[in-house]
Amino acid sequence: MLHDLFSPSVQHGLDLAGIFVFAISGALLAVRKNFDVFGIAVLAEVTALGGGLFRDLMIGAVPPAAFTDLGYFVTPLFAAALVFFLHPQVERINRAVNTFDAAGLGLFCVTGTTKAYEYGLGLTSSAALGLATAVGGGVLRDVLANEVPSLLRWDRDLYAVPAMVGAGIVVLCIRYDALNTFTMGTAVITAFVLRLLAMRYHWRAPRAWNRRSHAQEETA
Amino acid sequence: MLHDLFSPSVQHGLDLAGIFVFAISGALLAVRKNFDVFGIAVLAEVTALGGGLFRDLMIGAVPPAAFTDLGYFVTPLFAAALVFFLHPQVERINRAVNTFDAAGLGLFCVTGTTKAYEYGLGLTSSAALGLATAVGGGVLRDVLANEVPSLLRWDRDLYAVPAMVGAGIVVLCIRYDALNTFTMGTAVITAFVLRLLAMRYHWRAPRAWNRRSHAQEETA
Amino acid sequence: MLHDLFSPSVQHGLDLAGIFVFAISGALLAVRKNFDVFGIAVLAEVTALGGGLFRDLMIGAVPPAAFTDLGYFVTPLFAAALVFFLHPQVERINRAVNTFDAAGLGLFCVTGTTKAYEYGLGLTSSAALGLATAVGGGVLRDVLANEVPSLLRWDRDLYAVPAMVGAGIVVLCIRYDALNTFTMGTAVITAFVLRLLAMRYHWRAPRAWNRRSHAQEETA
Repeated sequence: MLHDLFSPSVQHGLDLAGIFVFAISGALLAVRKNFDVFGIAVLAEVTALGGGLFRDLMIGAVPPAAFTDLGYFVTPLFAAALVFFLHPQVERINRAVNTFDAAGLGLFCVTGTTKAYEYGLGLTSSAALGLATAVGGGVLRDVLANEVPSLLRWDRDLYAVPAMVGAGIVVLCIRYDALNTFTMGTAVITAFVLRLLAMRYHWRAPRAWNRRSHAQEETA
Repeated sequence: MLHDLFSPSVQHGLDLAGIFVFAISGALLAVRKNFDVFGIAVLAEVTALGGGLFRDLMIGAVPPAAFTDLGYFVTPLFAAALVFFLHPQVERINRAVNTFDAAGLGLFCVTGTTKAYEYGLGLTSSAALGLATAVGGGVLRDVLANEVPSLLRWDRDLYAVPAMVGAGIVVLCIRYDALNTFTMGTAVITAFVLRLLAMRYHWRAPRAWNRRSHAQEETA
Repeated sequence: MLHDLFSPSVQHGLDLAGIFVFAISGALLAVRKNFDVFGIAVLAEVTALGGGLFRDLMIGAVPPAAFTDLGYFVTPLFAAALVFFLHPQVERINRAVNTFDAAGLGLFCVTGTTKAYEYGLGLTSSAALGLATAVGGGVLRDVLANEVPSLLRWDRDLYAVPAMVGAGIVVLCIRYDALNTFTMGTAVITAFVLRLLAMRYHWRAPRAWNRRSHAQEETA
């Protein structure tokens, strides 16, 4: 069992931490969009649990963990309450929130990949679902808030690449039978550090070559 | 079997009534967005069946009822046809539509909660899925119409709270072994009346405390 | 087994062709929206696989074919790479892309309907899922790109009707026990030709009767 690589309680604690920081990012967007307290709670839940829900639906793990583990459901509500009462303070520590979000990204791409592999998917599909686990919640958050998903926008720092690298390390380790606590931890930390560097140095992905002038006017 | 609390034919009739009124609300939005006749039909189907589809996917009840019961699929098409030919009249009876929508809300939060519980989910998760059944179709409707979901907006009368109360009454009754036709009916009517009162007195949910001025400019 | 009507390798090749052309349409929209290379890849994947994913979730075919067949996953990436490097050329052959898209539409509505029927759904539901397979990817593409789905807009040439006709022919053939390679091919070609004619002559669907003047101002 791959899940035994981290002890279950450590794994669970890390999951809840990732859920919490993703929920914070959803709740903050809800405040910026001027949503009411229920909108804040909904966006916190969706951002935190959306990626995992998508993965669980795809691999047939129903009901998804989000509905069987009460902690997964309640944690985003705490994050929403925190943002509701303290959001100017939470925004002021934006750098800390971004750092935690990067940690959630690293964690989710690794645990998402291993869970998909445990359910019998191939290596490429497992990596794809690991990536979807890490970024899916953010995409759902932006769709519900009626914004272009920041994942897709060229004017945002790299977000998908760190998760792809993390998921890639995991499937390489599985392929060469080298998956253990140390290599999984390495994958998490690599994704985490890459995301921090992308934010620090504003790394961006290229857009299509030879975009014509009218394309530039339509900047999304 | 919880489903036996209402006789199956009564239950089915109530389901179809709820589906019909939700479909009307979807079709009316499609007309307002200037969609063509297929857009009207799609939005009617999505609004009426979206919440139940989401719940059925989550609890593993596939294929969902929407695809196994022809009545569930055809009813929204009737609603779409009605709006297509008679929409000025339908809009004029807007108050009636809102009243029916409130009835659908009350009904779906109760039947959604009981169905989720029958499939083995815990009480909190069942209530959450009951809420999702009641409001999910409306969220999907607004996402497809490229609008901010009215569920999330602060400038709309309370919609989620009545459904939460209805779902909450159901899980309390399950918890204390008091679920029967009478208590389920009470839950439906409580949610229904709360929603009517919210519309009558324009009850709204609070937004985050201490919103700064620039947040107010971004009113969604 | 209905799937044996086309030989498996022919069927697979046709599926990949349909996936490829749908992916091109997704990637081109991503370029127009000024997304970066990952946005292009995501939109290509979503457009190409979204309809089939939805169908597979509904009929309980998990993990969906998109995650078990590596070709389904990799083909959209090739399409994304092609558009990334050559998009002015790809746009110039817009007519060819539209023709291929019409072929994908015809193919997917037929294979989607037969797959749903094989999984035990009724005739009406199978046709509905065939339609959803054909148009679902495009709707997801537009939702992620934060645009009103072109499926719903009245100012676009007919798209759903050709797919409905193709799916309708398939279920009629199933009903009268006449489904074979020839009739399935006829259904594909009928949908394909209808879509080509709709584009050639700008066939459009009617909007609701008696729209009032203010509705026209809100042209989406």
